[in-house]
Amino acid sequence: MRIATLSIGDELILGQVTDTNAGTIARALLDQGLRLQRHLTVGDNELDIMDAINDLGGANDVVIVTGGLGPTLDDLTAHAAARATGRRLVLNEEARDHVRAMSGKLASLIVCPLNDKQALIPDKSTLIPNRIGTACGFHLICNGCFMFFLPGVPSEMIPMLHESVVPFLLERATKRPHISFMHFNLFGPCEAEVDDLLTGIARPDLGLYLGICVTFPWMRITLRAEAVSDAAADELLAPAVRTVRERLESYIFSEGAETMDEALAAMFRKSGLTLALAESCSGGMIAKRITDVAGSSAYFLESAVTYSNAAKERLLGVPVALLEEKGAVSSECAEAMARGVCRAAGSDLGLAVTGIAGPDGGSPEKPVGTVFIALATQDGCRSERFQFHGSRDEVRIITAWTALDWLRRYLSGAQ
Amino acid sequence: MRIATLSIGDELILGQVTDTNAGTIARALLDQGLRLQRHLTVGDNELDIMDAINDLGGANDVVIVTGGLGPTLDDLTAHAAARATGRRLVLNEEARDHVRAMSGKLASLIVCPLNDKQALIPDKSTLIPNRIGTACGFHLICNGCFMFFLPGVPSEMIPMLHESVVPFLLERATKRPHISFMHFNLFGPCEAEVDDLLTGIARPDLGLYLGICVTFPWMRITLRAEAVSDAAADELLAPAVRTVRERLESYIFSEGAETMDEALAAMFRKSGLTLALAESCSGGMIAKRITDVAGSSAYFLESAVTYSNAAKERLLGVPVALLEEKGAVSSECAEAMARGVCRAAGSDLGLAVTGIAGPDGGSPEKPVGTVFIALATQDGCRSERFQFHGSRDEVRIITAWTALDWLRRYLSGAQ
Repeated sequence: MRIATLSIGDELILGQVTDTNAGTIARALLDQGLRLQRHLTVGDNELDIMDAINDLGGANDVVIVTGGLGPTLDDLTAHAAARATGRRLVLNEEARDHVRAMSGKLASLIVCPLNDKQALIPDKSTLIPNRIGTACGFHLICNGCFMFFLPGVPSEMIPMLHESVVPFLLERATKRPHISFMHFNLFGPCEAEVDDLLTGIARPDLGLYLGICVTFPWMRITLRAEAVSDAAADELLAPAVRTVRERLESYIFSEGAETMDEALAAMFRKSGLTLALAESCSGGMIAKRITDVAGSSAYFLESAVTYSNAAKERLLGVPVALLEEKGAVSSECAEAMARGVCRAAGSDLGLAVTGIAGPDGGSPEKPVGTVFIALATQDGCRSERFQFHGSRDEVRIITAWTALDWLRRYLSGAQ
Repeated sequence: MRIATLSIGDELILGQVTDTNAGTIARALLDQGLRLQRHLTVGDNELDIMDAINDLGGANDVVIVTGGLGPTLDDLTAHAAARATGRRLVLNEEARDHVRAMSGKLASLIVCPLNDKQALIPDKSTLIPNRIGTACGFHLICNGCFMFFLPGVPSEMIPMLHESVVPFLLERATKRPHISFMHFNLFGPCEAEVDDLLTGIARPDLGLYLGICVTFPWMRITLRAEAVSDAAADELLAPAVRTVRERLESYIFSEGAETMDEALAAMFRKSGLTLALAESCSGGMIAKRITDVAGSSAYFLESAVTYSNAAKERLLGVPVALLEEKGAVSSECAEAMARGVCRAAGSDLGLAVTGIAGPDGGSPEKPVGTVFIALATQDGCRSERFQFHGSRDEVRIITAWTALDWLRRYLSGAQ
């Protein structure tokens, strides 16, 4: 079953609003073992819409269209659909009653004039009910292609998709595969290295697929098994999951939808340890990410964001002599900061970061991107020098990721 | 000039990653008076890519393709482009040297093996340089259609778009309208209020357009004038710009591409004042945003991210009695934090934030979303209570925005 989606709207094609409907529909289909083949976007132009409907209708078994069903003059989808499929536009009485009933219901929320335009749909098409808003959807068959027309507002489109479109497709998709998934989230290696480590795991010939998605500075590996039953898909997936875990173990910070910050939070809760931070070049980013997670007050005590040397001395007890002799960007300073914040806050762990985020402030010995990270624990304090590359933003982001990954590795006993 | 875009990637067509490249390209074109006609997305499947290139190439003057130029086996774009346009895939020496040089440069960040696959491009095509990463782009002409192939990673694609693709199109687009733009960036009012304040400014009949783009928690108003010459467009735009400035003055934090953080940084540099922060519920977000801007060390001294009461007492001198009597989430505590950090850091300004970000910790008197912000200056200290709504993330984001807007208004003399 070849399935395509079409999003309609000037705001989408001009880049003023990011289209999320295509992704929503793709994920809803994939959950059922159906794969989207093609996605197309056009603006609010009748000829463009007609061309798109004809092109997609001719090459696919199913086309799901969103947008352009509203009450205003630039909502042209029903009209274009009628012309593209050679039908008249007729007033659907059920749709008219719905529009009137919903307009009355919504009046207190947003004042909308009654508008029968939304009740005009192509002849010989079936109404798709909309529980949330005024815009009815409709469904028609043209040259053997099933076409669904839904409103573009996600809160209206999504229930209509799940209640009307997906069940319709499942009834007809006799040969759809059963699918099992696993996501692995990684930090550290580059794409080529991961590709290398994963050699031989994917077996498209057996229905076992592997995808790598890089989202700076981390990446996600997805294993997908397609088979004739859920049990067969699980069976196909299981050994591949084990192999990925074995080969990439030290890089995997979480599985499924869990973020790095959530994974770290779970480890802190389990460990019972408390944390204090001393941040220079990361400027509060690490504290921000730790406190992004609800409940972080149970283990996170404080962060001293010490941009000035005076603050490093006063808040963290970094000796003036050390700052003068070694500089604020040095392993000695990082370790003094980590120990200092640990002692001052009375925390179990103290993590410190100092470096040169740029674009200025670099030198031949310590170029922009030079970062020292130190971790003080009950077993002592250790630090490491990193040389990162990229813009100020990128250096800061990868610094925060690297620091959080250090904590993760420490708590997991990996180092 | 009919222009189409094509995004390639399984992660896009399966809905695992939201495509932002299409919107980025559409906006870059619109800035130059060029309009995107059609956008298509397909997965990492050679036949699908070939079909897409053929379909779009046959119906458009320009096709801009992104994605699928990486080093891994599922990166099929160059191969599919060669087959679709009837060319051989050849090793481009310039591209090979570039891949090797960039791999070396990036090696210390993330170790990547050399990979010559990225240097294979279709015969009779022109290399598009990539300053940021290893993946070279290329450009070819097929049956009169100009086709550009760029990597999908936005940080690499965007400079290539602006440096190579846009200038090429401008040379050839003879009949594009002359366009003048102005963006206004606002914080504070809701969309309906802004809509109301802007009544009557847009004149589509004259070629004067107005757009509102809401990006939680701020929004952007765009005025666009289209005319037969640059001078005519400027003339059409100027009175509308004045009207928008008059009507929305107190809400506009910047014009053009300047962010809130950059606007605030410029005001700090001009004022010569220094700043220290005391953050509780914002957890370092405000410090992170202030230090996002290069050169912030000139006025930003430190932030005490005091999640625990002990840290509020020790670092900021908030009296235990006050914490016990009024609670950490109170105007008294916020003011004590602001004064405390100002005194300790010796800064001109002290800004403090304390509140309940949720999802837990609320009470009938102080529900989730209750936030106190205090600003200590040489003229004294004042605080205000806010009641924000939304998720933990949303409460924290709007808290940081409101605090930064307070600083902006103070420095601009608006309050």
